[in-house]
Amino acid sequence: MSLNEAEWFTERFEDLTAFSVRFSQKLFAGKSPFQTIEVYETERLGRVLILEGCFMVTEADTFIYHEMLVHPAMNTVVSPRKALVIGGGDGGTVTEIVKYSTIESCVLCEIDPMVVDVCRTFFPSLSAGLNDPRVAIVHEDGAEFVKRFHRDFDVVFVDSTDPVGPGEVLFRKSFYESVKEALTTTGAAVFQTESPLFMRTVFANAVKNLRSVFGTHRVYPYLATIPSYPGGLWSFTYCSQSEQSPVETDKTLPRVLPPNLAYYNEAVHTAAFALPEFTAAMLAG
Amino acid sequence: MSLNEAEWFTERFEDLTAFSVRFSQKLFAGKSPFQTIEVYETERLGRVLILEGCFMVTEADTFIYHEMLVHPAMNTVVSPRKALVIGGGDGGTVTEIVKYSTIESCVLCEIDPMVVDVCRTFFPSLSAGLNDPRVAIVHEDGAEFVKRFHRDFDVVFVDSTDPVGPGEVLFRKSFYESVKEALTTTGAAVFQTESPLFMRTVFANAVKNLRSVFGTHRVYPYLATIPSYPGGLWSFTYCSQSEQSPVETDKTLPRVLPPNLAYYNEAVHTAAFALPEFTAAMLAG
Repeated sequence: MSLNEAEWFTERFEDLTAFSVRFSQKLFAGKSPFQTIEVYETERLGRVLILEGCFMVTEADTFIYHEMLVHPAMNTVVSPRKALVIGGGDGGTVTEIVKYSTIESCVLCEIDPMVVDVCRTFFPSLSAGLNDPRVAIVHEDGAEFVKRFHRDFDVVFVDSTDPVGPGEVLFRKSFYESVKEALTTTGAAVFQTESPLFMRTVFANAVKNLRSVFGTHRVYPYLATIPSYPGGLWSFTYCSQSEQSPVETDKTLPRVLPPNLAYYNEAVHTAAFALPEFTAAMLAG
Repeated sequence: MSLNEAEWFTERFEDLTAFSVRFSQKLFAGKSPFQTIEVYETERLGRVLILEGCFMVTEADTFIYHEMLVHPAMNTVVSPRKALVIGGGDGGTVTEIVKYSTIESCVLCEIDPMVVDVCRTFFPSLSAGLNDPRVAIVHEDGAEFVKRFHRDFDVVFVDSTDPVGPGEVLFRKSFYESVKEALTTTGAAVFQTESPLFMRTVFANAVKNLRSVFGTHRVYPYLATIPSYPGGLWSFTYCSQSEQSPVETDKTLPRVLPPNLAYYNEAVHTAAFALPEFTAAMLAG
């Protein structure tokens, strides 16, 4: 029995696999100059945000994605003060960043204002950090915006969509060079780099290009499970300006984690950088 | 556009989410006294084995499940000689076990002979270990079979389906007691214990009951990502008879890993036992 479209939302991935969720209500459907935007109410995954037909946020697992994008770098870079988020219009990344008292300013560069508006309305706790007085929001092309900066940010988080549509430029080598330039000499950037199981080529190419820009020994891919994303096993890549390794963090530094984290802790930090054999092999070539 | 059933196989989980794969061919459909069995040829996931409408094996990700069920215990228990597998008729678990030269005998107790026959035919490399001369196969109820043993096995792997149908008895406390009794005084058992994200109650109850049987400090849940299983983030639980912890393994022991592993290595071993905050919290109650 097939899934009734009046009750089920389905994301097809490359028309080879699909993930579906039963919804009780379609809360929003819109089309911005950049993409289609939908919000559904579901029992299993809570509210879900769909961009261009793809799961971007689910209330059930978004804590994994946002905590694992943000906290490994926040706990490696020493006293990060200035942060930049590129993409991330749902506000989840900013909400994690502003949990740290060292942060003095956080710029969110999201090309699509409709994403921000929709998430403020339908995901108030996820986007709560956007109301923090240290946060500034600009609606520009992230690849262009970051070119204006030179040694300005302690941490940069590239919270991109897949490398199609508006997210495509955020996987280019020229963009990686601009991000490196925008970092302070002790700074670090983290890029979401897709699934090493289902998007092997995209992942391997992203890491290869990041290595050519930052230097092989300053690039550290790491993993977490995001059930609503195709392939489930998801990668992020930490790239540092300095010699500070996120794997062997300085244990003499007192790290004060924000309270009420649901995924990240010190053991998870170290564990995330342990790559399975097949992933390490993909990156060895 | 809904997924055409002539081309897509769909597993619904609790009628709230669904995972689908496009297939090129249905290779087998049968019904044993225990369950329906199907095999499909797919582009993205390779061949897939479906039992009672649920993904059991996909060629794309089965290496993660079987390596992570088997190798953590094989590399904690000292020189395991005798192994028992309960369930696991696809042969994948046995195939990993017989990679170790210390193994003298391995008994597979699979209730359904049709699963073994189908997997020998359609998954020859996965089931290859079943042909090893050290392996004996019995087709009995695993919960009854294990009652005959007392301090006989160095390692027991409970490679069960979900706790419905024939797999239900393998989640009972009385079964856990029988497994403990069947282990040598230095032995250990590993149970697949479902998804801590999508099957929270089953997971938490399994760990709670295992703790009451083995003792809290001899029970170690650990995690891996299995994209084709509901919830993606999957748990296994290591339970030891002895005081030997799988987390702080004896580094003075020379561990010789089998060649050509695709997932497991020493770093992954340690990483798997690092529990995210929400998982640790579920087990703290």
